[in-house]
Amino acid sequence: MNLEVLFAGTGGSAPTPGRGLPALLVRRGGEHVLVDCGEGTQRQLMRSFGLAEIDLVLLTHLHTDHWLGLPGLLKTLDLQDRTVPLTIVGPVGTTAALAAVQDLTGRVRYPLDVQDVEPGDIVERDGWRAEAIGVQHRTTALGWVLAEDDRPGRFDPEAARALGVGLEDPREFGLLQKGETVRGVRPEQVTSEKRFGRRIVVSGDTRPCDALRAAAWRCDLLVHEATFMDEQAERARKTGHSTTSEAAALAAEAEVGLLALVHLSARHRPTEALAEARRTFEHTELPRDFDVIDVPFPERGDPIFRPGAGRPRRAEDAAEDAASLPPAR
Amino acid sequence: MNLEVLFAGTGGSAPTPGRGLPALLVRRGGEHVLVDCGEGTQRQLMRSFGLAEIDLVLLTHLHTDHWLGLPGLLKTLDLQDRTVPLTIVGPVGTTAALAAVQDLTGRVRYPLDVQDVEPGDIVERDGWRAEAIGVQHRTTALGWVLAEDDRPGRFDPEAARALGVGLEDPREFGLLQKGETVRGVRPEQVTSEKRFGRRIVVSGDTRPCDALRAAAWRCDLLVHEATFMDEQAERARKTGHSTTSEAAALAAEAEVGLLALVHLSARHRPTEALAEARRTFEHTELPRDFDVIDVPFPERGDPIFRPGAGRPRRAEDAAEDAASLPPAR
Repeated sequence: MNLEVLFAGTGGSAPTPGRGLPALLVRRGGEHVLVDCGEGTQRQLMRSFGLAEIDLVLLTHLHTDHWLGLPGLLKTLDLQDRTVPLTIVGPVGTTAALAAVQDLTGRVRYPLDVQDVEPGDIVERDGWRAEAIGVQHRTTALGWVLAEDDRPGRFDPEAARALGVGLEDPREFGLLQKGETVRGVRPEQVTSEKRFGRRIVVSGDTRPCDALRAAAWRCDLLVHEATFMDEQAERARKTGHSTTSEAAALAAEAEVGLLALVHLSARHRPTEALAEARRTFEHTELPRDFDVIDVPFPERGDPIFRPGAGRPRRAEDAAEDAASLPPAR
Repeated sequence: MNLEVLFAGTGGSAPTPGRGLPALLVRRGGEHVLVDCGEGTQRQLMRSFGLAEIDLVLLTHLHTDHWLGLPGLLKTLDLQDRTVPLTIVGPVGTTAALAAVQDLTGRVRYPLDVQDVEPGDIVERDGWRAEAIGVQHRTTALGWVLAEDDRPGRFDPEAARALGVGLEDPREFGLLQKGETVRGVRPEQVTSEKRFGRRIVVSGDTRPCDALRAAAWRCDLLVHEATFMDEQAERARKTGHSTTSEAAALAAEAEVGLLALVHLSARHRPTEALAEARRTFEHTELPRDFDVIDVPFPERGDPIFRPGAGRPRRAEDAAEDAASLPPAR
């Protein structure tokens, strides 16, 4: 099953010409989960993977750059006559913030399920779950672990045959795989250890912290903020953010598969920030808006960085044709 | 003095891949006035004319597609350490809406002057003024007339010489231009009639209405909504919007210089909507985001439609360079 992350907005605090405000879209099979929703996210998504399939929004914290795109997104889904429920989960205060927004924008007609959660709380989904972890920012802030269920071990038909199973009736393989003992052979004799599900960890805005380091242990992909380069380490400390090398050090200690840095301040050059991080942890990327990272099952290879894979193909031009008439005068 | 309109967001209700939510930037000399501020406007402006010079925001009404970009814009100006005051003027309810937003986003450090106005109220500026007109939408809604002060008549030095002034002392011309009588010659004998200032009229969301028709009389540029094509005339009536032909008919009756249509529903093709409008009023454009209309003094010519003149020059690429490093693996 595909598992991929679209970097829908990679900027922080304020947008730039090239970077929208924070938003990640995690796509697993047909399920789309949005992590954070800065101003402009709905349009970034329209230009890329679309809006319709989103049924879960996870917020990391309630600083405006991380959620002010939500009212407009909710409204647009209503204009699209959405009927499917939408679940929004965030730190304490999320319910109140959404209520205040709805006072201004009016209510939507589809069911909204808004939940405040605490670190450790889990949102259960079909085949995976999102777990909130407590991180350290200037306000109550969460990181999110998106973890697939563990997969059963892999059945080894050769080993089964060597033990005399399935030689005449191949349906015996099915019985073993369902957990039954066949001809005295127990399933665990012909099945590998269970395999861990894939895990993506999103830091939100935070200082490097133990909770995050523990949660990120050997995850496939860590999306970590790096608001500042090391020269601004003191400022990072004061504002509750991380530097490039701090994020990279955490990724190295947690032995993550791939580190993706986001939320870089516009004061820094991405090339330099990325080079700085790679000196501490080589397997680092600094995605731009519309870049995609694929997270395959580990036995099929490492995460794949696909620059621009979610980028609109000149959508402006494709969608528009007014300029094909001559000017009025 | 230059007078131009940047179409920063030409969509309506919901953004599309190619069209942002409503925002017009009127630039006159060094002064920048923003009319409406849909979600994403700050980034549209960053990619074009910039944010710093804005010191007046005029809102047409408080439907969210017309103002939800304001909180983020205010916040970004604060992050940019703005100190210059910002004035925000809109219909009754504007002050309350801004206060509610500031409860969520926190206050900004520069002076904010927020005013609720009624139709007929005028915002006086240096050399021009903005006048609110009452239009007909589903909620309290304003159109805005941006009108330059009338200019004094043009002094005719040849006529003055023919009457014996300035033949020996050219400073006599200056005295006449200041309104003094010189050698028995009165200023009005050598000066043309006073000339009307340029006028730009913005409809906001509205049914075609008399107040707008009167306000738009012989204006240089009318920016009028055309949410629907004529086939949706009934729907336009029910939702308080205008069709292409209704907007064009109003422009024809008001004898405007140029009509620019905005707020077209994504259901319609811009080429077809524009063609439909031009059957009623030929001098019509349907700008895309980042198109510009220059409004010269009438004696220097008609308004000039400049497609894409405000468009970023591959700003994403210029501002970003992270992709120039090879991927981590």
